[in-house]
Amino acid sequence: MAILRLGYVQVRVTDLAEAKKHYVETLGLKVTAEEPGKLYLKGWDEWDHHSVVLQEGGVGIEKLGFKTHKNEDLDVIEKNVQTFGASVERMSKGESLEIGDGIRITSPSGHTIEVYNEITFLGSETGYINPYPFPRHEVGISLPALDHMLIMAEDVALNEKFFMDVFGMYPVEQIRPELDSPGRIATWLSAGQKNHDIAIVAGRDKGLHHFAFQSENWDKLLRAADIFAMDDVSIDVTPTRHGITRGQTIYFFDPAGNRNETFSGGYRAYPDRPTVIWTPDQLGRGIFSHTRELNAAFTEVYT
Amino acid sequence: MAILRLGYVQVRVTDLAEAKKHYVETLGLKVTAEEPGKLYLKGWDEWDHHSVVLQEGGVGIEKLGFKTHKNEDLDVIEKNVQTFGASVERMSKGESLEIGDGIRITSPSGHTIEVYNEITFLGSETGYINPYPFPRHEVGISLPALDHMLIMAEDVALNEKFFMDVFGMYPVEQIRPELDSPGRIATWLSAGQKNHDIAIVAGRDKGLHHFAFQSENWDKLLRAADIFAMDDVSIDVTPTRHGITRGQTIYFFDPAGNRNETFSGGYRAYPDRPTVIWTPDQLGRGIFSHTRELNAAFTEVYT
Amino acid sequence: MAILRLGYVQVRVTDLAEAKKHYVETLGLKVTAEEPGKLYLKGWDEWDHHSVVLQEGGVGIEKLGFKTHKNEDLDVIEKNVQTFGASVERMSKGESLEIGDGIRITSPSGHTIEVYNEITFLGSETGYINPYPFPRHEVGISLPALDHMLIMAEDVALNEKFFMDVFGMYPVEQIRPELDSPGRIATWLSAGQKNHDIAIVAGRDKGLHHFAFQSENWDKLLRAADIFAMDDVSIDVTPTRHGITRGQTIYFFDPAGNRNETFSGGYRAYPDRPTVIWTPDQLGRGIFSHTRELNAAFTEVYT
Amino acid sequence: MAILRLGYVQVRVTDLAEAKKHYVETLGLKVTAEEPGKLYLKGWDEWDHHSVVLQEGGVGIEKLGFKTHKNEDLDVIEKNVQTFGASVERMSKGESLEIGDGIRITSPSGHTIEVYNEITFLGSETGYINPYPFPRHEVGISLPALDHMLIMAEDVALNEKFFMDVFGMYPVEQIRPELDSPGRIATWLSAGQKNHDIAIVAGRDKGLHHFAFQSENWDKLLRAADIFAMDDVSIDVTPTRHGITRGQTIYFFDPAGNRNETFSGGYRAYPDRPTVIWTPDQLGRGIFSHTRELNAAFTEVYT
Repeated sequence: MAILRLGYVQVRVTDLAEAKKHYVETLGLKVTAEEPGKLYLKGWDEWDHHSVVLQEGGVGIEKLGFKTHKNEDLDVIEKNVQTFGASVERMSKGESLEIGDGIRITSPSGHTIEVYNEITFLGSETGYINPYPFPRHEVGISLPALDHMLIMAEDVALNEKFFMDVFGMYPVEQIRPELDSPGRIATWLSAGQKNHDIAIVAGRDKGLHHFAFQSENWDKLLRAADIFAMDDVSIDVTPTRHGITRGQTIYFFDPAGNRNETFSGGYRAYPDRPTVIWTPDQLGRGIFSHTRELNAAFTEVYT
Repeated sequence: MAILRLGYVQVRVTDLAEAKKHYVETLGLKVTAEEPGKLYLKGWDEWDHHSVVLQEGGVGIEKLGFKTHKNEDLDVIEKNVQTFGASVERMSKGESLEIGDGIRITSPSGHTIEVYNEITFLGSETGYINPYPFPRHEVGISLPALDHMLIMAEDVALNEKFFMDVFGMYPVEQIRPELDSPGRIATWLSAGQKNHDIAIVAGRDKGLHHFAFQSENWDKLLRAADIFAMDDVSIDVTPTRHGITRGQTIYFFDPAGNRNETFSGGYRAYPDRPTVIWTPDQLGRGIFSHTRELNAAFTEVYT
Repeated sequence: MAILRLGYVQVRVTDLAEAKKHYVETLGLKVTAEEPGKLYLKGWDEWDHHSVVLQEGGVGIEKLGFKTHKNEDLDVIEKNVQTFGASVERMSKGESLEIGDGIRITSPSGHTIEVYNEITFLGSETGYINPYPFPRHEVGISLPALDHMLIMAEDVALNEKFFMDVFGMYPVEQIRPELDSPGRIATWLSAGQKNHDIAIVAGRDKGLHHFAFQSENWDKLLRAADIFAMDDVSIDVTPTRHGITRGQTIYFFDPAGNRNETFSGGYRAYPDRPTVIWTPDQLGRGIFSHTRELNAAFTEVYT
Repeated sequence: MAILRLGYVQVRVTDLAEAKKHYVETLGLKVTAEEPGKLYLKGWDEWDHHSVVLQEGGVGIEKLGFKTHKNEDLDVIEKNVQTFGASVERMSKGESLEIGDGIRITSPSGHTIEVYNEITFLGSETGYINPYPFPRHEVGISLPALDHMLIMAEDVALNEKFFMDVFGMYPVEQIRPELDSPGRIATWLSAGQKNHDIAIVAGRDKGLHHFAFQSENWDKLLRAADIFAMDDVSIDVTPTRHGITRGQTIYFFDPAGNRNETFSGGYRAYPDRPTVIWTPDQLGRGIFSHTRELNAAFTEVYT
């Protein structure tokens, strides 16, 4: 585990006040810092300073951050990028708010990835001494933490190799053109035992399909969808199960049009578990287990 | 409570063997009798001889049955029909298998309704002496009981009046053209404290929109949708919540094309609870709480 | 359905301020009126003026109320009491706050029962026009409504007969000394299709074992138990299933020592469903399905 | 992640036929091999040859196995043991059925631990090509996989150090005599991101408190407890939540008296998450979140 997890996503939103309402009042994230044109947020169960940064102006992904297990991992990853042949530079403490020295990488798909080990510790809302299992007073759907993200790339196989070679991730599930093909239509990669930390689907480079938050279970998803209706959140896909990962899901949009997900369940990943392979004829069921059909908007609409 | 409940539905299916597979292996209903071209079924928690009759040939509703609380209720209901001005005739024990003397009514919408008090008692699978809460070995999604049905009628207001005047039902929820309008786009009627025993939506007379089975809860609906995918059942609407009734639902089709529902939750109805009124501008959310949109197929496709 | 439901319970509490905190902040009931030494409360999904009255001084049940379906039911019930040979008197509008004319009965077990048809209508928090399924902002465990109560009586069989003869209730489940015995150790009675509106267990006359609130499902019970831990509510029985009624339950105490319950699930009762009979050798499992053992405190401790 | 997970537990049972009935028909494990006096089992979602070995004669833990990520990890771990000063020996392929070359270690607490990288691959029941989320036909409570175990040790602090130094595990939660004390009453250790792979509680060396299986969620726990009642499984602790780990649990006994657990939920562990500390005054709530009391049997009864 060189990479602990997807540490943060930084996305552009057209209207920061509107976005704040969505992420804070409906999703229940906490504001941890504000700068002109920027808002830093975390879930109640996260200890690092932020996991979501909203940046006013436009829509889509600005950058994402991976937190390493150890400081030494930074050097190894830097070398890995160089060996792979992608672009990498050093970044200094404070270039990104509350984040220490690190490296900034551009993936083959053009996504900016910041890798760091140091970030200001804030602690969770329940604390770590004789804690209760969740906060007594919850806001909106009270999301505990960022979970994963799905980016678009023109060359999925190349980018899968990038995340494997550079970050030591491994593919948990893949959609391949044919069962034994080296080609990739999509791939789900884990850095540890999370079902996936990042996924890549064929599409426009630099694209963001969605970023996802943890949700406790299927019952919480129902409550989330009900509250989305009350708060007039645009739901893209109502509660259902993914064939891929077995997870349960709702897709919805923030006011700027970035796709969010609340994700629950899914099995624990292990590097010795065989990679699950999906073929195009079963793709509909792979994505949405119940309809067994992909709606065009799901693959074509992203930021 | 003159009427205890919707006792049975008798529907036509194009292929009895295919239908048997669906209702028995996937839905978990039990076969209680077979006749040439007919199959009698019940859920594990029902005590009467049958709640579903499948009849080979075509598609759609053949007739439905209401069970009365007492034998005397039959006379009262007969008089009510005559007063209302609809057609009614006596039916004799055995005309419908395992069912006693009763009356046969044609509703203004052209639906055939058999009303009876006597039906052969078979008992539930768990029994009534020191019982366990459910059968130790369950089949498919193991539906416990028939719940309600939704029929189509050209004149909803007239048919609502019919069910109120003749059977003593009361409207639990209504869709009205305007808030105070006497017109009805749809109505949900209860004979007791069930959320609804029968609902009526504007459409072709004699039409069947769906009949529904009880499901224990939202988790059971997820399991049902998963098993429908495994058994290749055509799902019409994936797990979601109704605004109307607050119930949770999956709509799906039997192999002949009759729409089925598994329904859970919904509040307990009382005659002193105000009738809930929905207006056309909120209709989408009334039907499907999460998408807040009616798909055309949902209102236009029925048998 | 002469009786719609258990309309309210009025219980004594040693400290009204403490009790208010429990019923309002933890259970989520709403205060609808206050008088010196008295507090009137209702759940968010109830429409009548109150379902719980707290009265300062002591502990235990002061009286309970049944709401009738129609005003005429009052006369019938009055006659039924006289025929049965129990004590009944007329009560006038306003004797009980916001409640109309009615009758006041003393059951053989010495419990005071007020029967009324008229009570001030307040309406639910979600309203009845294009409503959402639950309030957007919930307090504590946000109980929607009063469900049932369990009283103690020295002669259970006599009191069961009383509730049947006077109120037209029917026994849904019974514990009998032997399978065919006319004796009753306990009985669960329904006035409609609710699993039970009132239950009676052998014990000291005038005793209150518990009164119960509806809870949506098993997941809500987990959340309730978690919040009880946070709010230091004394839990008597942690989440489990009843064999009797199949319901899911938590028993806990209010600060004065009155036992409360949150109850979810349980089948829909019908008068043609056979009464379920429990025998003493299976009694433990009847009460608590999982431990299959009765703890002495559960039967011996009540108010 | 040198250690992937707790690979298997081998326990003694007094009667192999009785135990088989329990683990296969009630828990839903699959038999993968039988030898005289031994039974090899796995859950439906596991791919390795076995995760539970039952050995006829007596009761308690015989040995446990850890699977490494890579073959090279064996050498590192062997050196770690030597540095720590515990006993280790090489074991050869086949000494343990279907398991490759490895090392056999005796922990300070006297437990035998086999460490291996190679074990015959059988695969899960759902497979890895376009799979469904669970098997269409499930047996009993259909447990997917072994989760963790809790062993007893006279010196918890020493054994915690052993698992940290030798296997690279880290403490996720601890019970300490005082907040800053180096002493340990109990400790929960993770080898990756699982909430815990092994826990140690103060008690008799070589003791086994319980071994636990994954369960999907709180609803599955209710179903499990219901089926335990039907199958006459002795339940030790009915469905509740742990304060420690936030997990949901049922404790029960196999017919020989070994304690089993089904465990669901619990947060994802990370090495940079602060270790949660419990103090003795909150210990009851730490173990059982709802009763907030430790029953004596829970700490004193083990095998």
